[in-house]
Amino acid sequence: MQLGLIGLGKMGGNMAERVRRAGHEVVGYDRAPGKRDVDSLEGLVGALSAPRVVWVMVPAGEPTRQTVRELGELLEPGDVVVDGGNSKFTDDKVHAEMLGEKGIGYVDAGVSGGVWGLENGYALMVGGSADDVAKVQPVFDALKPPAPTDESGEAIPGAGFVHAGPVGAGHYAKMVHNGIEYALMQAYGEGYELLAAVDLIEDVPGVVASWTQGTVIRSWLLDLLVRALQEDPALERIRGYAEDSGEGRWTVMEAIDNAVPMPTIAASLFARFSSRQEDSPTMKAVAALRNQFGGHAVQAIQAQEVERPA
Amino acid sequence: MQLGLIGLGKMGGNMAERVRRAGHEVVGYDRAPGKRDVDSLEGLVGALSAPRVVWVMVPAGEPTRQTVRELGELLEPGDVVVDGGNSKFTDDKVHAEMLGEKGIGYVDAGVSGGVWGLENGYALMVGGSADDVAKVQPVFDALKPPAPTDESGEAIPGAGFVHAGPVGAGHYAKMVHNGIEYALMQAYGEGYELLAAVDLIEDVPGVVASWTQGTVIRSWLLDLLVRALQEDPALERIRGYAEDSGEGRWTVMEAIDNAVPMPTIAASLFARFSSRQEDSPTMKAVAALRNQFGGHAVQAIQAQEVERPA
Amino acid sequence: MQLGLIGLGKMGGNMAERVRRAGHEVVGYDRAPGKRDVDSLEGLVGALSAPRVVWVMVPAGEPTRQTVRELGELLEPGDVVVDGGNSKFTDDKVHAEMLGEKGIGYVDAGVSGGVWGLENGYALMVGGSADDVAKVQPVFDALKPPAPTDESGEAIPGAGFVHAGPVGAGHYAKMVHNGIEYALMQAYGEGYELLAAVDLIEDVPGVVASWTQGTVIRSWLLDLLVRALQEDPALERIRGYAEDSGEGRWTVMEAIDNAVPMPTIAASLFARFSSRQEDSPTMKAVAALRNQFGGHAVQAIQAQEVERPA
Amino acid sequence: MQLGLIGLGKMGGNMAERVRRAGHEVVGYDRAPGKRDVDSLEGLVGALSAPRVVWVMVPAGEPTRQTVRELGELLEPGDVVVDGGNSKFTDDKVHAEMLGEKGIGYVDAGVSGGVWGLENGYALMVGGSADDVAKVQPVFDALKPPAPTDESGEAIPGAGFVHAGPVGAGHYAKMVHNGIEYALMQAYGEGYELLAAVDLIEDVPGVVASWTQGTVIRSWLLDLLVRALQEDPALERIRGYAEDSGEGRWTVMEAIDNAVPMPTIAASLFARFSSRQEDSPTMKAVAALRNQFGGHAVQAIQAQEVERPA
Repeated sequence: MQLGLIGLGKMGGNMAERVRRAGHEVVGYDRAPGKRDVDSLEGLVGALSAPRVVWVMVPAGEPTRQTVRELGELLEPGDVVVDGGNSKFTDDKVHAEMLGEKGIGYVDAGVSGGVWGLENGYALMVGGSADDVAKVQPVFDALKPPAPTDESGEAIPGAGFVHAGPVGAGHYAKMVHNGIEYALMQAYGEGYELLAAVDLIEDVPGVVASWTQGTVIRSWLLDLLVRALQEDPALERIRGYAEDSGEGRWTVMEAIDNAVPMPTIAASLFARFSSRQEDSPTMKAVAALRNQFGGHAVQAIQAQEVERPA
Repeated sequence: MQLGLIGLGKMGGNMAERVRRAGHEVVGYDRAPGKRDVDSLEGLVGALSAPRVVWVMVPAGEPTRQTVRELGELLEPGDVVVDGGNSKFTDDKVHAEMLGEKGIGYVDAGVSGGVWGLENGYALMVGGSADDVAKVQPVFDALKPPAPTDESGEAIPGAGFVHAGPVGAGHYAKMVHNGIEYALMQAYGEGYELLAAVDLIEDVPGVVASWTQGTVIRSWLLDLLVRALQEDPALERIRGYAEDSGEGRWTVMEAIDNAVPMPTIAASLFARFSSRQEDSPTMKAVAALRNQFGGHAVQAIQAQEVERPA
Repeated sequence: MQLGLIGLGKMGGNMAERVRRAGHEVVGYDRAPGKRDVDSLEGLVGALSAPRVVWVMVPAGEPTRQTVRELGELLEPGDVVVDGGNSKFTDDKVHAEMLGEKGIGYVDAGVSGGVWGLENGYALMVGGSADDVAKVQPVFDALKPPAPTDESGEAIPGAGFVHAGPVGAGHYAKMVHNGIEYALMQAYGEGYELLAAVDLIEDVPGVVASWTQGTVIRSWLLDLLVRALQEDPALERIRGYAEDSGEGRWTVMEAIDNAVPMPTIAASLFARFSSRQEDSPTMKAVAALRNQFGGHAVQAIQAQEVERPA
Repeated sequence: MQLGLIGLGKMGGNMAERVRRAGHEVVGYDRAPGKRDVDSLEGLVGALSAPRVVWVMVPAGEPTRQTVRELGELLEPGDVVVDGGNSKFTDDKVHAEMLGEKGIGYVDAGVSGGVWGLENGYALMVGGSADDVAKVQPVFDALKPPAPTDESGEAIPGAGFVHAGPVGAGHYAKMVHNGIEYALMQAYGEGYELLAAVDLIEDVPGVVASWTQGTVIRSWLLDLLVRALQEDPALERIRGYAEDSGEGRWTVMEAIDNAVPMPTIAASLFARFSSRQEDSPTMKAVAALRNQFGGHAVQAIQAQEVERPA
C-alpha cells in the first residue's frame, strides 16, 4: 500500500525505511529539505491515491496540532490520519473531532522501540475505530516486531501490537508504559545504589550481570544496566540527573484523577525532579526548622491559643 | 528530694536548673570540671542518701552503657538509675538487666523540649516498673510542663508526661515522636516549596504566617517556620541539607519489623538522606539507562537479544 | 458596611453571624427559604447600595460558576464578588474575566476554620487586585481571628489573614494548606499505628496526650487526636476510610506541573485512595505474579523463553 | 565430584537432580525419610570423601543454625559447608566463625530460579574465600544456567553466577535482588490498575501483552503478568493480598543503615503490609481526625499555649 509520512527525523526516517523494506510505497515529507520526497503537504496528498493513509511523526503539541489542522484542509472523506508522536491522549479527541467533521478518520499510535526499532520492530499501541485501524493495518504489520513463536513454531499473538480501544487509547497505553518504565529504572537504581554503598559487595557490576539469567528480575532494562556498568563500572562519568518527558507526569495525574494509588511511579517521578535541583527548597525549610529548634528565646508568633477552646 | 545528675551539658545543665527551681537538691557530675558539684561518680553516689535516684544524661551508646555499668558497681539495692538520653529502646533492656542483677531499678525517659525546656518544661515519656517510676516522680513533676487548665481552671491531666509501659517504653514513645516530627517537617517543606515555585503567590512568608491562626495545620513547627521566613524570606542563607539522628531510622525499622506501612515517615527520612548526597548513585543508574536507550547497536548481553526482535 | 452573602449553609450561616456580630449589615440569600433575608439574587442586589460586595459561599464547580454568571448580569461596575468556596484556582481566572468584562471586581478567598470559626475566627487567604481586596477588607477583618499579641500586648500581624497575590492566589494558598493537612494527618496516623502495634506501649492514648505539651510535634491536629482517643481509646468504632476533596489532588498535580518533589503529600493522598478500595487491583497483580513464580510449566509467552534458560 | 545435600524439599530435590544430571554424585539427607540416601548427618558425612562439600538447603534461622552447628561437630578441617537457603547475611558471619574455629570452610549462596530452575538453571550469587568457592565451583557450574552466547557463538560470561565478595556477600546480593523484585512487581501492578480503571482502555490484557516485545519495559515478570491475565483477564479469582519474606524488609533496613534513599522499594514493601490489613489503624486515625473537624464544642486538651512563648 501507499503511506504518506510527515516528519523524517531519527524516528520517522527509520520507520519509513522499515515500511519500505516490507514492500510498501512511502511518500515522505519533512519541513527540512534533504530526505523528503515531496516539498509540501499539498504535494504529499497529491502523490497518494484515495483512500489515503497519512502518518504524522512530528513533535507533540502545537506542531502536531497544526499539521492535523492542515491535513484537515487537504484530505478527503475516507482518508485516515495517524498520529504516531508522543501526544497526550486528550489531544487525540480534539484531533479526531477536527478531522471527523470532514469525514476523515483518525488513529493514535503509541510507538516504542527507539533506535532499536528499525532492525527489531516497533511496539505499537493504537486507538481508533475498527474501520480506521483496518486501513492502516498493513503499515502496522510492517512496523511491529515479528511474532515470536512457541516451541512448535506457532506464532504467539499479541506481543508488540494492540488495538487498545477508541481514539486516545493508543497514546494512553503508551503513557502508562512510560510511567512503569520510570519505576522500573528507579528500582534497579535503588538496588544498584545499595550494592555500591556497602563494602561487603566487592564486584557490583558482576552482581548486576549475574541477575540477567535465571532470576526473577531479568529484563531488557537490566541488560542495559549491565552494558552501562561494563563501560563505566562505577558510573563515574555520568551525572545523576534525569529529565522527564510528559508521559510520566501524565500517568501520575491520571492515577490521581482516577483515585488509583501509585506510590512507586510517583516516587520515581519525584526522584527525577529532585535530581535536577541545585538545592531543595523543601530541605531548606527542614533545615531552617532544625535551626529554630536550637533557637533563642525569640518572640511568640501566636497567642491565639489563649482564646481557642482546642 | 535529692537527685544525682550525670552530664551537665546544654540539656543536662538546664534540667538541673529546672529541678532546683522546684526546690529539690541536685548533685551534678560531669567529666568536665566547671559546673560539676562532685568530681567523680563515687563522689556523686557518696553525696546522696539511699534510696538514690541517679539521672544519666550523656550521649547514647557506649558513653551511656559505660556509665550504667559503673553505676552498677557503685549503687545499692533499692536505688534507681534513669536514662534520660537518646538511647535506643533495645539498650534499655540490657541496662535494666545489668542493674537488676544487683537489685537496682531502672527507668528510661524520653525527653523533649530542647532549649525551650528550662522555661516551659520538658515533655517526658517514661518506661519502667511502677515502683521505680514512683521513686523518680517528684523529679518528673519538676521537669514536666505545668498542667494546662480548662476554662474553669481545672488541671487537664496527661499533657507533657506519660508512664508509657515497662522498661524501654519511654524511649520507644520518644522515638515515634521523632519519626512523626520528620514527616511533619517534610510536609511543611513540600508545601513551602510549591508556594515558592509559582509566580501566582506573591507573598510566600505571608501565606505561611496566615496559617498560624484559625487553620487546621497550625502548630508549633509552623510557628517556627514563620520565624525562619521572617529572618530569611526566601531561605537564601541556608542549605537544603538535613542530618538525621537515630530515632527516625529506628522508627521506620520498627515499622518494618511490625509490618506497619509508614510511607510518609519513610519518605521524609529518605529526603534527608538525599539532601546529603553530592550526587545520587540511583539517578546515575537511571541516567545511564536513558543513555543506553539512545544507544548504538552495541553487542547483546543476553543470548535472547540475539534471537528476539527487541 | 453592607455584605451580600449567598449560601447560608453551616459555613455560610456562621460566617454571616460573625460578620453581623462585628457590626456589619448582612443580607443573606439561599436557595432554600428559612434563614434567607431576600428570596432572589435580584432581591439581594436590590437590597445593597453600590458599590456592593457579594460573597458567594456555594459548592465549587457548576453551582459557583452559575452564581457568578448570574451576578454578572445583575451587578454594576465597581461592585465586587468574593468566592469564598472551595473553587479550584483555575476557576478564579475564568470568573474574574467573566466579571471583568462588565467592570465588576473579583476576589477569591480560601477560608479555613470549620465549625470552630464562628467563635475563633476564620483564617483567610485572598487573591485579587489591591483595590478589590480593599473594598472587602472590613468583612475580612470581621471574619479573621483576632490578632495575637506578644508579651507586651502588641498585635502581631500576619496570622489568620494574607493577601497572597492576584486572582487565584487565595484559593491556591488554601489548596496547599489542605495538601499539607493530608500529610500531617497521615504522619500522626502512622505514628499512632506503630504505637498500637507493639506490646511495649501499654498506654497509647496516654503517649499521644503526653505529646501535646513541650514537644516538637504539638499542634491543633494532635489535640484533636487526643480528643478522639479519649472518646474511643482503640478507635474501634471508626473505619479506616477517608474521603478526599479536590484540594489534595490539585496540590499534587500542581507539584507535578511545577516539577516539585512532593513525596509525603502524595503518599498521604494515595493512602486515602487505598483506604476506599475493597481490594487493590495492584496487589491482585502482585499476588498473581507471585502465583506464577510457584508456577507450573505453562507455555512461554515470548519466543525467547523457549531458548533462554530462564 | 561428590556433594552432600541436606534438605530435599521442592527446591533441594530439584537441585540434587540438576547436579546429578551434570554427572556428579549427590548424597542427599532429609529429616523426612523417603527421598533421602542416608538417614542421619553422620551417615551423610561418612558417605563422602574428604575434602567434603556439604550444601545446606533448609529453612533460614534456627533450622539452618542447628544444622551448621551439627556439621561443625562432624566435619573435618578442609571441608566446606554451603548455605544455599534464604539466610540473612548477618547469619553468615556467625556460621563462618562457628565453622572456621574448626578449620571448616563456609560459603553462602543466594539462589534464584524457583520451579523453573531444574530445567533452566539457577542464578547463583555466592560469598566466601576464593579457596572455599573453588572447592564448590563444579557444583555451581552444574546448577547455573548455561552461558548465553553472542552472535558468533561465543559464551558471554557473568550471567547467572557471581562470586560477589567475602562471606555474606552472596546472601546480600540475593537480598537486594528480592528488594528490586518487590518494586518491579509493584510498578507493573500500578500500571495495570490504571489501565483497568479507565473505560478508554478496552483490552487491558492485550495492552499488557503488547508490551512484551519491542518495548523498554519487557521482562520476565511482564511475561508472567501476561500469562496471569490470560488465565484470569480481570484477576477476579485472586485476592490483592501479598506476603513478604524477610529479604524485602532487610533490604530497606540495610538502605536505612547505609543512608540510601529507597523510595520505590520501601513503597512496595508498605503496599504488601497494607494488603494484609483488615483495616488500617493509620486511616482510622485520619478518619477520626476528620470527624473531629466536624466537631462539637468539646473541652480543650491544652491551654499551655497561654504560657508558651512560641
